[in-house]
Amino acid sequence: MLISESSDNVQPTELADFPAVIRLPIHWGDQDAFGHVNNTVPIRWFESSRIGYIEQGCSVLMKESQKMGPILASVTCNYRRQMHFPDTVRVGARVSRLGRSSLTMEHVVYSETQQAVAADGSSVIVIFNYESNRPTRIPDIVRTAIEALEGKSFD
Amino acid sequence: MLISESSDNVQPTELADFPAVIRLPIHWGDQDAFGHVNNTVPIRWFESSRIGYIEQGCSVLMKESQKMGPILASVTCNYRRQMHFPDTVRVGARVSRLGRSSLTMEHVVYSETQQAVAADGSSVIVIFNYESNRPTRIPDIVRTAIEALEGKSFD
Amino acid sequence: MLISESSDNVQPTELADFPAVIRLPIHWGDQDAFGHVNNTVPIRWFESSRIGYIEQGCSVLMKESQKMGPILASVTCNYRRQMHFPDTVRVGARVSRLGRSSLTMEHVVYSETQQAVAADGSSVIVIFNYESNRPTRIPDIVRTAIEALEGKSFD
Amino acid sequence: MLISESSDNVQPTELADFPAVIRLPIHWGDQDAFGHVNNTVPIRWFESSRIGYIEQGCSVLMKESQKMGPILASVTCNYRRQMHFPDTVRVGARVSRLGRSSLTMEHVVYSETQQAVAADGSSVIVIFNYESNRPTRIPDIVRTAIEALEGKSFD
Repeated sequence: MLISESSDNVQPTELADFPAVIRLPIHWGDQDAFGHVNNTVPIRWFESSRIGYIEQGCSVLMKESQKMGPILASVTCNYRRQMHFPDTVRVGARVSRLGRSSLTMEHVVYSETQQAVAADGSSVIVIFNYESNRPTRIPDIVRTAIEALEGKSFD
Repeated sequence: MLISESSDNVQPTELADFPAVIRLPIHWGDQDAFGHVNNTVPIRWFESSRIGYIEQGCSVLMKESQKMGPILASVTCNYRRQMHFPDTVRVGARVSRLGRSSLTMEHVVYSETQQAVAADGSSVIVIFNYESNRPTRIPDIVRTAIEALEGKSFD
Repeated sequence: MLISESSDNVQPTELADFPAVIRLPIHWGDQDAFGHVNNTVPIRWFESSRIGYIEQGCSVLMKESQKMGPILASVTCNYRRQMHFPDTVRVGARVSRLGRSSLTMEHVVYSETQQAVAADGSSVIVIFNYESNRPTRIPDIVRTAIEALEGKSFD
Repeated sequence: MLISESSDNVQPTELADFPAVIRLPIHWGDQDAFGHVNNTVPIRWFESSRIGYIEQGCSVLMKESQKMGPILASVTCNYRRQMHFPDTVRVGARVSRLGRSSLTMEHVVYSETQQAVAADGSSVIVIFNYESNRPTRIPDIVRTAIEALEGKSFD
């Protein structure tokens, strides 16, 4: 469900700088007893947007080596507007920091009905070597792929 | 995310008799430790398809009276094929039985990637009167709406 | 969280015939916009009770062979009473049918607050051979383990 | 499932400063395709621990006025250790900051199997006035209740 920027599907400006955007319907059951989308649900959307980003740009990371993989170190979500069913959200992901063995990904949730950002946040991802059981340097092939996707270099 | 049968979005024959069809992406996180979609997930999709059906055809049911509403009495799901991320499913709902105070809805989950039915099942829904605290006769306006959607009469 | 039948933890009669019983708190977030436990939640509890049963009695099934494992073919849930947070449920599992290559497990959800069965249902589990890609005969060691747990023979 | 500090249920030192602690089993289905507890699950546990705290100490907040209630502004989770089924976690909540109209709650997830903190994090909660549609001053009765629970004053 990655969205290409076709003429009839132009991204809102809030998502302009996000190389990977997924589009998801809100389920009725995403709502909790307060009658709006439960706070755990955007965390699931963040996960899906991380996967969407990896699929789009740095699946080389996943495939380069069986012994290396991403681990989620932390996640933060800011709940800016209450969301309700029915609605469709667009969830953007971009890399905002590219460190030696970790990176920070930013997420934004845009509500089509409200035409506004309803939540945003970030994830810290560590590249882990399962053999040495330690964080490991992000391979150059992955850095290159991310910089290509983001259209800038991280120094 | 109800799908209109536009030229570029023709329903597969497996969904031909379903007046309400929703289209949903599989999330990576819908998968469990077996590496395929967890058994609770189609139950959530069934719920979304019930809501989709009600939205499309018999929201009159919901609005006619504050004192009356649908209650889920039972659900059954048959898991026919393992599903995986990434994939998109189409979930159809139709009414197969229309009783005095209850109805049976059938659900089918079609995997776009596998081009096959991956799960199906049914729900029994009871129309409940919250004042008398008892099942109540399905109003004629709802019967008419369902029969119009289904293109047939239930006798 | 398997419950031993200690003096201060006697099972209610509704669970008397269930060799495996787990005890679980209801989360606030298990409730949906109707203000009661969502219909997908007992399906998750059924899953946990199946795992609890397998852990208790027939983990031999899991360990006997890498090439063989249980697959969930279908699940049915009857919603008998609305459940709310806070509450604690006890979920029982028992085998009611032991076929050649499949078995039926019955589940019951007992609400401690309501002191009544709030949901029940069943699962059909098929023993699958991953090498031949077909259902396979349930091994005698598993039959014996199940019959010992259930205190009866299935002929 | 709030735990009283009875003799046979002494809290580990990691939870010593948390006035509200809930105890929850990990479900098999809490695990994702990586084979460990999915990152959304501790967020659900945080929610349950917030509710547990409110139940224990400041339900006065909820009851004082229909027109006032807590809103979750943000949540952060640090994933420190991978968790697996079967295990039981203890989730502590404490107030670390008590502002004019918002407060910060800290959460810690202690794995009984690993005998270590597996995740921690925090929530920012805003007290909202539904009539004025704005954040509102936390009432003194709530401040007093929180300070009593925490055994200290917030100046």
